[in-house]
Amino acid sequence: MIIDAHAHLVAPDGLYAYRTQLLADGGYHAGKPKISDAALAACADGNVAIMDSVGTDLQLISPRPYHQANSMQPSRLVEPWTRANNDTIARTVALHPDRFAGVGALPLVPDQPVSAGFGELDRLVQLGFVGALINPDLHEGRGATPPLGDRYWYPLYERLVEQDLPIHVHSAGCFSERETYSEHFVTEESIAILSMLRSPVFEEFPTLRVMISHGGGSVPYQIGRWQAEVLHPGLGGRPDSERFETALRRFWFDTVLHYPPALELLFKTVGPDRVLFGTEKPGSGSAPNPDTGRDFDDLKPVIEGFDFLTEADRRAVFEDNVRLVFPGLKAIGGRS
Amino acid sequence: MIIDAHAHLVAPDGLYAYRTQLLADGGYHAGKPKISDAALAACADGNVAIMDSVGTDLQLISPRPYHQANSMQPSRLVEPWTRANNDTIARTVALHPDRFAGVGALPLVPDQPVSAGFGELDRLVQLGFVGALINPDLHEGRGATPPLGDRYWYPLYERLVEQDLPIHVHSAGCFSERETYSEHFVTEESIAILSMLRSPVFEEFPTLRVMISHGGGSVPYQIGRWQAEVLHPGLGGRPDSERFETALRRFWFDTVLHYPPALELLFKTVGPDRVLFGTEKPGSGSAPNPDTGRDFDDLKPVIEGFDFLTEADRRAVFEDNVRLVFPGLKAIGGRS
Amino acid sequence: MIIDAHAHLVAPDGLYAYRTQLLADGGYHAGKPKISDAALAACADGNVAIMDSVGTDLQLISPRPYHQANSMQPSRLVEPWTRANNDTIARTVALHPDRFAGVGALPLVPDQPVSAGFGELDRLVQLGFVGALINPDLHEGRGATPPLGDRYWYPLYERLVEQDLPIHVHSAGCFSERETYSEHFVTEESIAILSMLRSPVFEEFPTLRVMISHGGGSVPYQIGRWQAEVLHPGLGGRPDSERFETALRRFWFDTVLHYPPALELLFKTVGPDRVLFGTEKPGSGSAPNPDTGRDFDDLKPVIEGFDFLTEADRRAVFEDNVRLVFPGLKAIGGRS
Amino acid sequence: MIIDAHAHLVAPDGLYAYRTQLLADGGYHAGKPKISDAALAACADGNVAIMDSVGTDLQLISPRPYHQANSMQPSRLVEPWTRANNDTIARTVALHPDRFAGVGALPLVPDQPVSAGFGELDRLVQLGFVGALINPDLHEGRGATPPLGDRYWYPLYERLVEQDLPIHVHSAGCFSERETYSEHFVTEESIAILSMLRSPVFEEFPTLRVMISHGGGSVPYQIGRWQAEVLHPGLGGRPDSERFETALRRFWFDTVLHYPPALELLFKTVGPDRVLFGTEKPGSGSAPNPDTGRDFDDLKPVIEGFDFLTEADRRAVFEDNVRLVFPGLKAIGGRS
Amino acid sequence: MIIDAHAHLVAPDGLYAYRTQLLADGGYHAGKPKISDAALAACADGNVAIMDSVGTDLQLISPRPYHQANSMQPSRLVEPWTRANNDTIARTVALHPDRFAGVGALPLVPDQPVSAGFGELDRLVQLGFVGALINPDLHEGRGATPPLGDRYWYPLYERLVEQDLPIHVHSAGCFSERETYSEHFVTEESIAILSMLRSPVFEEFPTLRVMISHGGGSVPYQIGRWQAEVLHPGLGGRPDSERFETALRRFWFDTVLHYPPALELLFKTVGPDRVLFGTEKPGSGSAPNPDTGRDFDDLKPVIEGFDFLTEADRRAVFEDNVRLVFPGLKAIGGRS
Amino acid sequence: MIIDAHAHLVAPDGLYAYRTQLLADGGYHAGKPKISDAALAACADGNVAIMDSVGTDLQLISPRPYHQANSMQPSRLVEPWTRANNDTIARTVALHPDRFAGVGALPLVPDQPVSAGFGELDRLVQLGFVGALINPDLHEGRGATPPLGDRYWYPLYERLVEQDLPIHVHSAGCFSERETYSEHFVTEESIAILSMLRSPVFEEFPTLRVMISHGGGSVPYQIGRWQAEVLHPGLGGRPDSERFETALRRFWFDTVLHYPPALELLFKTVGPDRVLFGTEKPGSGSAPNPDTGRDFDDLKPVIEGFDFLTEADRRAVFEDNVRLVFPGLKAIGGRS
Repeated sequence: MIIDAHAHLVAPDGLYAYRTQLLADGGYHAGKPKISDAALAACADGNVAIMDSVGTDLQLISPRPYHQANSMQPSRLVEPWTRANNDTIARTVALHPDRFAGVGALPLVPDQPVSAGFGELDRLVQLGFVGALINPDLHEGRGATPPLGDRYWYPLYERLVEQDLPIHVHSAGCFSERETYSEHFVTEESIAILSMLRSPVFEEFPTLRVMISHGGGSVPYQIGRWQAEVLHPGLGGRPDSERFETALRRFWFDTVLHYPPALELLFKTVGPDRVLFGTEKPGSGSAPNPDTGRDFDDLKPVIEGFDFLTEADRRAVFEDNVRLVFPGLKAIGGRS
Repeated sequence: MIIDAHAHLVAPDGLYAYRTQLLADGGYHAGKPKISDAALAACADGNVAIMDSVGTDLQLISPRPYHQANSMQPSRLVEPWTRANNDTIARTVALHPDRFAGVGALPLVPDQPVSAGFGELDRLVQLGFVGALINPDLHEGRGATPPLGDRYWYPLYERLVEQDLPIHVHSAGCFSERETYSEHFVTEESIAILSMLRSPVFEEFPTLRVMISHGGGSVPYQIGRWQAEVLHPGLGGRPDSERFETALRRFWFDTVLHYPPALELLFKTVGPDRVLFGTEKPGSGSAPNPDTGRDFDDLKPVIEGFDFLTEADRRAVFEDNVRLVFPGLKAIGGRS
Repeated sequence: MIIDAHAHLVAPDGLYAYRTQLLADGGYHAGKPKISDAALAACADGNVAIMDSVGTDLQLISPRPYHQANSMQPSRLVEPWTRANNDTIARTVALHPDRFAGVGALPLVPDQPVSAGFGELDRLVQLGFVGALINPDLHEGRGATPPLGDRYWYPLYERLVEQDLPIHVHSAGCFSERETYSEHFVTEESIAILSMLRSPVFEEFPTLRVMISHGGGSVPYQIGRWQAEVLHPGLGGRPDSERFETALRRFWFDTVLHYPPALELLFKTVGPDRVLFGTEKPGSGSAPNPDTGRDFDDLKPVIEGFDFLTEADRRAVFEDNVRLVFPGLKAIGGRS
Repeated sequence: MIIDAHAHLVAPDGLYAYRTQLLADGGYHAGKPKISDAALAACADGNVAIMDSVGTDLQLISPRPYHQANSMQPSRLVEPWTRANNDTIARTVALHPDRFAGVGALPLVPDQPVSAGFGELDRLVQLGFVGALINPDLHEGRGATPPLGDRYWYPLYERLVEQDLPIHVHSAGCFSERETYSEHFVTEESIAILSMLRSPVFEEFPTLRVMISHGGGSVPYQIGRWQAEVLHPGLGGRPDSERFETALRRFWFDTVLHYPPALELLFKTVGPDRVLFGTEKPGSGSAPNPDTGRDFDDLKPVIEGFDFLTEADRRAVFEDNVRLVFPGLKAIGGRS
Repeated sequence: MIIDAHAHLVAPDGLYAYRTQLLADGGYHAGKPKISDAALAACADGNVAIMDSVGTDLQLISPRPYHQANSMQPSRLVEPWTRANNDTIARTVALHPDRFAGVGALPLVPDQPVSAGFGELDRLVQLGFVGALINPDLHEGRGATPPLGDRYWYPLYERLVEQDLPIHVHSAGCFSERETYSEHFVTEESIAILSMLRSPVFEEFPTLRVMISHGGGSVPYQIGRWQAEVLHPGLGGRPDSERFETALRRFWFDTVLHYPPALELLFKTVGPDRVLFGTEKPGSGSAPNPDTGRDFDDLKPVIEGFDFLTEADRRAVFEDNVRLVFPGLKAIGGRS
Repeated sequence: MIIDAHAHLVAPDGLYAYRTQLLADGGYHAGKPKISDAALAACADGNVAIMDSVGTDLQLISPRPYHQANSMQPSRLVEPWTRANNDTIARTVALHPDRFAGVGALPLVPDQPVSAGFGELDRLVQLGFVGALINPDLHEGRGATPPLGDRYWYPLYERLVEQDLPIHVHSAGCFSERETYSEHFVTEESIAILSMLRSPVFEEFPTLRVMISHGGGSVPYQIGRWQAEVLHPGLGGRPDSERFETALRRFWFDTVLHYPPALELLFKTVGPDRVLFGTEKPGSGSAPNPDTGRDFDDLKPVIEGFDFLTEADRRAVFEDNVRLVFPGLKAIGGRS
């Protein structure tokens, strides 16, 4: 069975028109998005067709990351907007319960405690979602959200551990005027890993499960820098420190890297037992690669073609690791 | 001949005490740092000994990047501080003219035009420096410096092209509270590449030469993302756009990647003709790698061990590419 | 012929989803909204059906005011968003050229000169629009846009006079946390009138034509206050000053007042020759009035029922005054 | 008996010079204003003469609203300044106890809890004042004071209800650069009504009595808008909602409208049982109306001339409603 | 003849009430202060009586310094307020032309060029004023006005030199919450002297005449610090620099020091030829000194009692130096 | 025995280079300064030689005031930097325990409670320091630190009184752009005295001992102003108030005034029993006075030359007063 651990909602315009409506009236008459069953079904069916075309059995779908909008002003709009996204996912899952499972967003807001997201987290559990999508930069490039290693986030980790829900780390928009949202994804993934490893997060929450998007940002490539630093006395390291490459394996990584040599580097650096199949398809990688004729994000054949992976490795990547990280999937057998 | 294109000044405490003095008196009595010839010679000789121990013939030395301090307050201190660094480099080069060449910093200041650095740039030329060290984030993590693709920087590019001086891109400190300065290096290198490729910089300045530190940040690893994007119509790309991997080869990259598989990825992605030998030694990589017994930043044996490189490739990396990018080196034959 | 001088675009979700898309990607890949001809025709036809049901021959349609979004961040998004609205109006007019005429918005941005809107204004003329919708509070309740009497706006007035285009004054959103957008409409209409009358606008631009929404905000009701003030020496007035009620008649007013006694007050205060038929239908007044069984915004019967108006008065209000203020309508004969 | 529910203190220069003194020395030596008994008596006698000339028996006098100065900086000056105003009122009332009664201001300050005014409120009670003047925009046009419906104000309402004191709502200065203070009065009166009706204030404080100045701002004129909105499902309304015109009658309104048709609209919209005679005389309406030869604010003959009012209505407006809202007047019989 | 070079306007409440009026209405109806001739004459006569009681023949009167209010908000009020002060001085001088001469304030405003004061400066010349009162801290303790040595001020110096008008340096209010206005006077006088001496002001404007209030702040007492600094090579000084005590004599100083030993220190440090008689009477020194029975600011007997002064010295201090600095006095012979 | 109560650390460059290192890496790897025993001994010996040359037996040394850096950003660096200074003092004292005693700085930070310094204060006690150096302007000229009379500081006073440690008041840097750090010293000393005397500090902490640097700023010179004010009813004074000159004697003052007439004024104003010998040597006064041939800060001969002092006075100033204020010195006998 092929489970895609990183995919996003495909929704009708009505969802996105709703945000414009919220912004226009300032939230005085929030209401709900107007999405007909037919429009939603058309979107969901279209996505299933794409999955079938590339051999994906099951997708974990979360809100389009760059639509998370945690820094939206006025901030009271973040909650209805997030609910609308999660609700649309729930409706989509209900249409195809054996093809989709939900990963929900939380209405976290810059400079407010993470407890702002607890109500929606509880609701996600009730709706049967299997994980939470976390934007580590609530300011979306315009401020200083405490990084994921900071104690600011710990009450949320505590809650997630209680609920046995994993985190999918994926930043949202970026308005710094220096990076596009897509470039910012990479930056934030790197910061997420490095800040958490500089912190006691995994000592305090040893059962917390964290999946980093896009193959871990820059970290597997720049790993030599961090390997040296933890051993370098002049930089606060100790020769007998835990090796960085060991610590790094506390995370899980998805395969959303559209360049096979990079994906190979990822496997060899963190090990196939820490990698989850993910495509983010349809998405920014859904353009045909002129060298292969297939879309950049059609990653199943790429992984199947890696001869350094064993059959057990591939099974782990395509299914077992995903089920390990997202235990809420146990009820879903797929059609394999 | 082995030329290390990325190394930094080793200086006595007197240089760094000078910055503290500037800060304390607010620049009213700037003066100059007090560094005796003996103290300076001891530092320089120590560095030469390190070079000898790893087989480096010539180092291009620039100010310690994280001491560039472009965002120092009050900003009028940036100029005397930058001059002090460059002057100390010039004195060091004068002590060992066949072992060192200078790459100078510029007193650029947040929210001021880049012409603030022209005076010092002219002075660097007079002092025989062979390149300019550019910090692309003058706010040092606390604001929105226009990225290197922005027209803000073009007057500087024009001046550099006139002087035939290359740029070494290397960020400085980071006070965002989200990244360490070292993590910020990687972020800024990625932004530098991506913002310049989104801009017309290389059309307007076709002879501008830019060396990106640390193997290009995250870009060679995440390249699939950008390859797809430039071809994806939904993201403003066109199927007949210039391929990203072609465009990327407008830059040069140094080898400051302490993880051999990553270095291999770099060579295979951008080609050996765009890579310059660099070690940043002594620096944060100067800790022994327990697996090899050598320092992480002792990169010459690593490169010599890559059997996918030809002899000509190696010569290009160790010397020819450096001389191509930094033509001011022509007078320095080394002891080879 | 019945011309409704104050109505707004009825558009499919695709238009509003576009704004969400702009916000999410920060404008890096602006593109255009995706609105099919079929979806647009369905909206336009629905609106024509409403017009038919209340006897309106021709509507002047402008963007939904609270979607003008002049204060949207980042501000570079205002231009593509405004163009998208105007383009959708142009497409709607093209579908029913004898039932609709366009009044376009301008991409004005807080703290930028009004010349930011000149390019779009020229485009509106080329597209055959007959007026410009002006939001007098570009900050949308969060700052201090100079009021319409301020010289800030004069370059725009000059341009409008040259093009013989009238202004329809209508504010947009409100994020002050004190008023809803709808309450803010009234506030801004009052400020528009009073600030213009305190200024030399009408001396410098005697041919400028300005239509104030919603019966002039509070001014006709509070007029006694301003009548006294212009005559009161202690407040800078003079006994021989122009009477306020005379000055007020430099403006035109629409009939969007859903309370007949208020509408009667308007007619008696400013005179039927300064009033234009307008309904803003469909809109916030499209709820049935339990006392009449008709929608609050079904104003034609109300006006027809005012026996203090002559037949000529009614013709002026329903058609002649509109044609006087919006001379660009001359080509449109309607079906009368 | 004719009771004018809306009038303000007439005071000697010494009171106003005191504010300048406070500002100049920053409050280090606050002291008290220097107002001689003779100067005060001259002012009070002058005002009594005006009352006699227009047939007013009793005036409720409060500080000149635009002198409330809640946003004065440094904010510690607000308290002594408010006390000085209230003290001068108390001295004036003591001079003519059958012609004047006091309505006092409170030293409320932007961004501080309303409990800052409790001390002075208690003092007002001890001094025999019959109501409290409340400025609903403490920032005076430069910030976002929570509107009167916000829970920010509820501790004050609780205190007022305990003391059985009514509120007279009247804004102060305006420094937004968009409105004059006088224009801002109208805006703030409208916001006061609309925000309170959107809130549960009157459910939580059913005995709270609120008099809105100047005939209720824009609300009676724009009432159709709000009638429709509360019934419009698309705007959060319900067809069976309480009708807006019913809800509006929870407030009282004064007659400070200098335009007889507007005053007529007020009476017909809210009913004579919710209207209190008020003139704000002497004030901005004290200029002769060329059409009548009487001052605009000489409103007694206007009301007496309304033939749609019964004798009982007139008695209610001139006296009974005032005594109902301000029960503290019971001891004052006047000279009728 | 005894000329008091440092005294301030004694004015009726009407002047100070005017500022409150300006603040309340935001300047929309600025008007002028209402000061009757009788009230003004009473104040002026009272001041003449005080002068007679201590033997002063002529006073140079300027606005009460702490009423200068350069930082008043909104800043457009500064001009009418300053004019009102200067006008009241002009009227006072006109009442007693042989007992008073005017020193006027300028409507300078934080963060605006000093040319904002040129119009009023020209008017002062026309009105016959003999000097200009300059507040060197326009932000009044809340910001960073460039100090008097900064080029910000040079256009004003140029204008003053052209008009042959001297400067009287005296700060205004202080809202830093760290100093009272009176303490701030001393701070600002010190900054004025030291910043001007660190600048080329006196080289560029050799004929500029500057009188520092209150005996020069802290400078004559702390002079040893500055004497050493200008000679100390480590602090940018040179052993052959102009001696500080020489440079200091470019200024003039008044005698407003209420402690005879301090006044003696002043005379001995700067020399009697740089000291002008001044009392600031009536003012904060007008309290009886229990040790002498005379007011602290009754300084004539103190100076007459200094036996280290010659008769010529005393004449210089009491009259000749004042006439030298304020040549506009030449027309006033006094009653001596 | 001659005890110099006001002197500062003479330290090698390594200390000051450490601050630059902290700033560059943002405190991620704080570490400690690298100062060899030899380098430190050289500095200490040099200072002892200076002391011998002017006859000083014992110096109380504190950090160079302008290196206190309380406003350094990011503020977390203040603590390691302060510790480094105090540690270097402790090492210096340990080298010459009979020639030096320590006065330590505290890591106080703008806008944080003074309890931030308690940990270091306890450590100072353990290290045998005899006093605490307090910078009263933690913002260093860029903000509004509450003055020393404010309750903000009281928890620190309570702690100091418990530990029987005196305060040496000395400001640090100044970045207001209006004063140099040295000029700011004088301003802050004046503010310290005046704000404490306006407060109940000495009533609440009668045993608190406070030494003001540099002869008390401007206060002894401007004392007449304050003498009058406390007696002036118009300024809140009372004729029977405690005389200012009496209150002033609650402080102690050092002799760091390089101008003998000023020093004489100090002695005569506050009395020799409130003055402590201090030179701040080596420092900004260490330039030869051309008139005497001795350094300005060689103050022992100046004081010995004052014939108005008795022998007992001199002994008090040179030793007894210092021992009274700094009782922790009792263990140190000196070489007398």
